[in-house]
Amino acid sequence: MSPREDDITTWFGQQRRLDPTAFPIGIGDDMAEMRVGQDATVLVTTDMLLDGTHFDLKAATLEQVGYKAMATSLSDCAAMATIPLAAVVAVALPPGFNTQQLKDLHAGIIHAADKYNCPLVGGDITSWSDRHPFAVNVTMFSRRAENAPVRRDGAKVGDAICVTGSLGGSLHGKHLTFEPRVDEALKIARTVTVHAMMDITDGLSTDLNRICRQSDVGAVLDAAAIPISDDARKCDDAMKAALNDGEDFELLFTISPEHCERLLRAWEGVVPITEIGRVTDATGMQLRMANGQLLALSPEGYDHFAS
Amino acid sequence: MSPREDDITTWFGQQRRLDPTAFPIGIGDDMAEMRVGQDATVLVTTDMLLDGTHFDLKAATLEQVGYKAMATSLSDCAAMATIPLAAVVAVALPPGFNTQQLKDLHAGIIHAADKYNCPLVGGDITSWSDRHPFAVNVTMFSRRAENAPVRRDGAKVGDAICVTGSLGGSLHGKHLTFEPRVDEALKIARTVTVHAMMDITDGLSTDLNRICRQSDVGAVLDAAAIPISDDARKCDDAMKAALNDGEDFELLFTISPEHCERLLRAWEGVVPITEIGRVTDATGMQLRMANGQLLALSPEGYDHFAS
Repeated sequence: MSPREDDITTWFGQQRRLDPTAFPIGIGDDMAEMRVGQDATVLVTTDMLLDGTHFDLKAATLEQVGYKAMATSLSDCAAMATIPLAAVVAVALPPGFNTQQLKDLHAGIIHAADKYNCPLVGGDITSWSDRHPFAVNVTMFSRRAENAPVRRDGAKVGDAICVTGSLGGSLHGKHLTFEPRVDEALKIARTVTVHAMMDITDGLSTDLNRICRQSDVGAVLDAAAIPISDDARKCDDAMKAALNDGEDFELLFTISPEHCERLLRAWEGVVPITEIGRVTDATGMQLRMANGQLLALSPEGYDHFAS
Repeated sequence: MSPREDDITTWFGQQRRLDPTAFPIGIGDDMAEMRVGQDATVLVTTDMLLDGTHFDLKAATLEQVGYKAMATSLSDCAAMATIPLAAVVAVALPPGFNTQQLKDLHAGIIHAADKYNCPLVGGDITSWSDRHPFAVNVTMFSRRAENAPVRRDGAKVGDAICVTGSLGGSLHGKHLTFEPRVDEALKIARTVTVHAMMDITDGLSTDLNRICRQSDVGAVLDAAAIPISDDARKCDDAMKAALNDGEDFELLFTISPEHCERLLRAWEGVVPITEIGRVTDATGMQLRMANGQLLALSPEGYDHFAS
């Protein structure tokens, strides 16, 4: 059950070869990177959020939706350990959407923009001709920091696999209020050499599989080490929730065991970092249970691409 | 009947003051501009296109839609006489949308990308949970050229008002197949000093009103001079179609009368340039009829913002 979205993304990336000098990073990572001057590049990510898929306006406020739309893209900036620069936002409005509703949305956007020093610099407002739901698209720009951008494809056999925070059950609320790990990512990349990193958006199992595929490595996770969130514990199967639920927006990264030791010793962040497994030379992923049994682990997080 | 979309855009622009060194152009023009290095800036535009509003998948192919989505943003690059650099595309898919359909869309995107040397470098694929229509968002980047970017707010009293091509009736087909005036804009900006420019997306009357408002000037158009398209002549009122129909994607710009004379003399482009009126120190716009009568002209093009 390989995620179809990854296949089509790979296909898109193969259709045209980008000049690597002009575009150091193309399709298939958390952000693309383009050169815009002698020694300047800018990174970019675009994310479409839909009522009924990424939020539910019957349960969430427009201010929460505006915040989430920005935070989702900020999490992509974090995923590569880059520094947010600015954002543009496009919205598709249902009929009857009024000025106050737009201002509520804007308040949420500005909340995130101010908090992460990433101003809103432009946008587009358009309307459905018939009764269809609200949609919002954020495109965000960032710039290189020290030892970055960190890509998905650099994981090395023997690396420690780490995550920030705790995982699973995001739909209980965190998916609307999460704090993108922008500062944590920059601090990690300053402290150690990060081989591969991304943010967990479609679930740990799906996103770790992406790092494995793109780095041509395998992985073994220690079930007992996975930090299960309090919200995951509200689910029927807490471990399954931690492995497969989408929208954790935590960092998933690999570093050498020595650097892992150094990072964990030096780390004073409020957000915890946990070592959850190792990169292997196998194909595919495995989960080591408390009794030592090894189970095959497959990507079972969310795949947005319908068949 | 002042366009609500402009009011809310103005309000958005007023909520946070952008540092003009970091962001030379903010909310309210065809593109925003941000500094990304010592002497490098990048310009950005984002546009959301919706099935049922900007195209109709019962009548248009996905390849046409992909082309139009890119061409709409390329037209924004042209509107400021800037050079397209790259694009990212996000799509919202109806249930059941298949791989071949995505490839058809991609073919249209690539058609425009290749033609205007503006590669696709990233994107996002997401799906509606219920049966809602296809939406596509393009965010495009460009860089400064000579004498650019040209903004909307520089029109001067006495300026000649010019347009490229012919106007009106775009829904008869041009809205899917138009050629964004990227090369023409660059050539115009190389030949003369352009005081104000934009592309006509919401209709000549609406978009000229934007230049007037942002430049704090008025305008008089000569009815007899307005280049009415063959498609506009198929409409009940051809002049009204040329004045008010959206999606012409032609350039609207103002230059001094001397430069206008020079430009028209030097112009060898396939796409014609026509002088259609003058910038005045009045408030608002007027239309001079063939008999000399002056009619008040109001912005009656398309406004995407519902009340």
